[in-house]
Amino acid sequence: MSKGIGVGLIGLGTVGGGVVKLLNDSPLAMQRRKHVKFDLRSVAVRDPGKPRSVPLDGVVVTDDAMKVVDDPEVQVVVELTGAPPAYEWIRTALERGKDVVTANKAVIAEHGEELFHIALDRQVELMFEASVAAGIPIIRSLRTGLVANKVESLYGILNGTTNYILTRMTRGEGSYAEILADAQAEGYAEPDPTMDVSGMDAAQKLSILSRIAFHTNGTAADFYCEGIEAIEPGDIEYARELGYTIKLLAIAKRAGDRIEARVHPAMIRSESLLANIHNEFNAIEVVGSAVGTQVFYGRGAGEMPTASAVVADMVELAERKAAGAGSAIGDMVVEEGGAFGDINQSELRYYLSLLVKDHPGVLEQIARILAAEKISISSVIQKERDLQGGSVPLILLTHEAVEKSVRTALAAAQKLDVVEKTRFIRMEEL
Amino acid sequence: MSKGIGVGLIGLGTVGGGVVKLLNDSPLAMQRRKHVKFDLRSVAVRDPGKPRSVPLDGVVVTDDAMKVVDDPEVQVVVELTGAPPAYEWIRTALERGKDVVTANKAVIAEHGEELFHIALDRQVELMFEASVAAGIPIIRSLRTGLVANKVESLYGILNGTTNYILTRMTRGEGSYAEILADAQAEGYAEPDPTMDVSGMDAAQKLSILSRIAFHTNGTAADFYCEGIEAIEPGDIEYARELGYTIKLLAIAKRAGDRIEARVHPAMIRSESLLANIHNEFNAIEVVGSAVGTQVFYGRGAGEMPTASAVVADMVELAERKAAGAGSAIGDMVVEEGGAFGDINQSELRYYLSLLVKDHPGVLEQIARILAAEKISISSVIQKERDLQGGSVPLILLTHEAVEKSVRTALAAAQKLDVVEKTRFIRMEEL
Repeated sequence: MSKGIGVGLIGLGTVGGGVVKLLNDSPLAMQRRKHVKFDLRSVAVRDPGKPRSVPLDGVVVTDDAMKVVDDPEVQVVVELTGAPPAYEWIRTALERGKDVVTANKAVIAEHGEELFHIALDRQVELMFEASVAAGIPIIRSLRTGLVANKVESLYGILNGTTNYILTRMTRGEGSYAEILADAQAEGYAEPDPTMDVSGMDAAQKLSILSRIAFHTNGTAADFYCEGIEAIEPGDIEYARELGYTIKLLAIAKRAGDRIEARVHPAMIRSESLLANIHNEFNAIEVVGSAVGTQVFYGRGAGEMPTASAVVADMVELAERKAAGAGSAIGDMVVEEGGAFGDINQSELRYYLSLLVKDHPGVLEQIARILAAEKISISSVIQKERDLQGGSVPLILLTHEAVEKSVRTALAAAQKLDVVEKTRFIRMEEL
Repeated sequence: MSKGIGVGLIGLGTVGGGVVKLLNDSPLAMQRRKHVKFDLRSVAVRDPGKPRSVPLDGVVVTDDAMKVVDDPEVQVVVELTGAPPAYEWIRTALERGKDVVTANKAVIAEHGEELFHIALDRQVELMFEASVAAGIPIIRSLRTGLVANKVESLYGILNGTTNYILTRMTRGEGSYAEILADAQAEGYAEPDPTMDVSGMDAAQKLSILSRIAFHTNGTAADFYCEGIEAIEPGDIEYARELGYTIKLLAIAKRAGDRIEARVHPAMIRSESLLANIHNEFNAIEVVGSAVGTQVFYGRGAGEMPTASAVVADMVELAERKAAGAGSAIGDMVVEEGGAFGDINQSELRYYLSLLVKDHPGVLEQIARILAAEKISISSVIQKERDLQGGSVPLILLTHEAVEKSVRTALAAAQKLDVVEKTRFIRMEEL
């Protein structure tokens, strides 16, 4: 019997356990690939003494990840910790000529350029399908299936926690804070939910997808990111009344010779496909020059969906190695990447929400300020309601306007005595 | 400058023209892959004298496809005719050790097993992403991205023409015959629409997807196929009233140790994703053991979407060859494939439509017949209407029932004096 590929696993948490399960169960599609045989050699875990639900007979168990990297029997390092030192482990493994499979979005998002270079130099693979949208094969689809396309735009619901919260808010089940608390109790949100609700998780994933789709080499720090913390049930209600749904979108698209990338809550038409992605599901809409609009939908997190992507990478790797193929990482090295545009120059439609005194002439004052910034209005909702002592919400939808002008106009409006509060939500045509 | 891979093209119609355009335009994602360079050497067309909209300088143009296959400068034969002799051309090319890329669903569906065997023997590739759902990368997603999954079920809207017709019928824009005529005038349907409206086009595609997902080696002739010709506006209206939408579905799923495959109109819940796939778009919902539910959506036909898939295959081929890799076709050879189950043993819910005399006791008679076949009813719609001289439609939804029993019961009902006509539509839970 031929010897399998030596695998070293760093991390045996949820995803790591799922990977071991899949390797053991080996579905028929894997069994039928005769070169796909793995020998799990060593595993690094935080506590080697802890009992495990997966069999580890004959496997070296250590608390030192570098021992896995250094193990001469390990040809493929599978990194599944999500921990910051993962960068060192992955880099060292690549430098030592080992192939790496990772689910670590932060490392790929922040250090991708350097790591892809090392992989290319050493002619090894660095595979990361699991880093974005778990088992949805969006990374290989962009790299291979859509390779003959110039990608025009990419809109993603890339964070399950925020989509779960917004879905429940849209169903009228509570405020942001209430549903977040529920989500934490149910395990849909972390005890510290910041990475998710701030949009940063989605932004890291977007920087990875943007590298593939638009050949950018920036990180999430290079573009605008806004979370869902400020979304109010009232916004969702007005959006619905106007035929829109609020989603946290990760957007990358061409805008002249720049790439516009941004993550923020957006109002999209309620009948669009992305508006109908519910609960913790993810979806990515890609518009390609040849294929037109495509959508990829599925679970974006979880033990088995993530493990599915990790094992898919391992299988591809095994087949490439067996066939004698060199590294396929060349397309990921960007060097002179397209620059990200400034959000202030974005031209979008906007939902403006102003809490104003219920006085005559208020709408006229606001309209004058908007006109001065060349912002034109497509719809107005003003209801006579007595909220918070004589103030009422004034909702305006704009035609396409420059973000900077919108910010300037709202800052000016905010200075009026009759205006208590101003906010806006960006709109996207999908 | 390194010499590119010699390409021979058979067919320069819509898709062939699109492929030449994409090779000439070569988007950045292709340019950045240094091994991806193609030299179009020869092209076979029906009429070599006809002016072409794509440049063919230095390309041999012939009306003899076998000359392209035999051209010693041609390493990759790209077959895009859809014509029956394509089987000979593809087989001969493979036998002569040439790689083949094709968009020809009929050849892959009918002769796949033989052709994949030849490719494996000769260690060449036979690639066919374009044969199902055009530019949607469903074939590579099933073969690679979902390789670690046991596929549980696959539901596809795989035919754009029928989805276009059903979408417009659902919008109340006319009868089947009227909208088919429109679709023909607009180019959405062929002058002879049989392949599309009969479900045979979808069935051929399903047999290809089922080979990948379930390791079956049957052809479309081995499973049940029913088209949309008999769908009436009234069915769509009742379906909507009950919360359902009618779609032509291509279905393959596990049923015990058999694979159930079938193509037919089906009623699915109107809020499901597949019910919201409109017009000529395609979508495939796959349920995998690890990933759960995934959906792939996009255009399933047309010049550039199809060309996108063909060129993606060519790029993958070029990279594999440059990397020195052997054939990757092994997973497509099935040999002992799973057998397809018999539709008569399927257990589904059914929409039953009976045109009955408006007499007292009719419902009781029908109910007795259904009960005798162990078919239980979940909903009834019976409206007092005087259609066609005293007859009214009686609509029944069943709980899960065996198809054979449903057919037996309807045949028995049909014999009653009070029953003029019986029909049924299968229901699917999505």
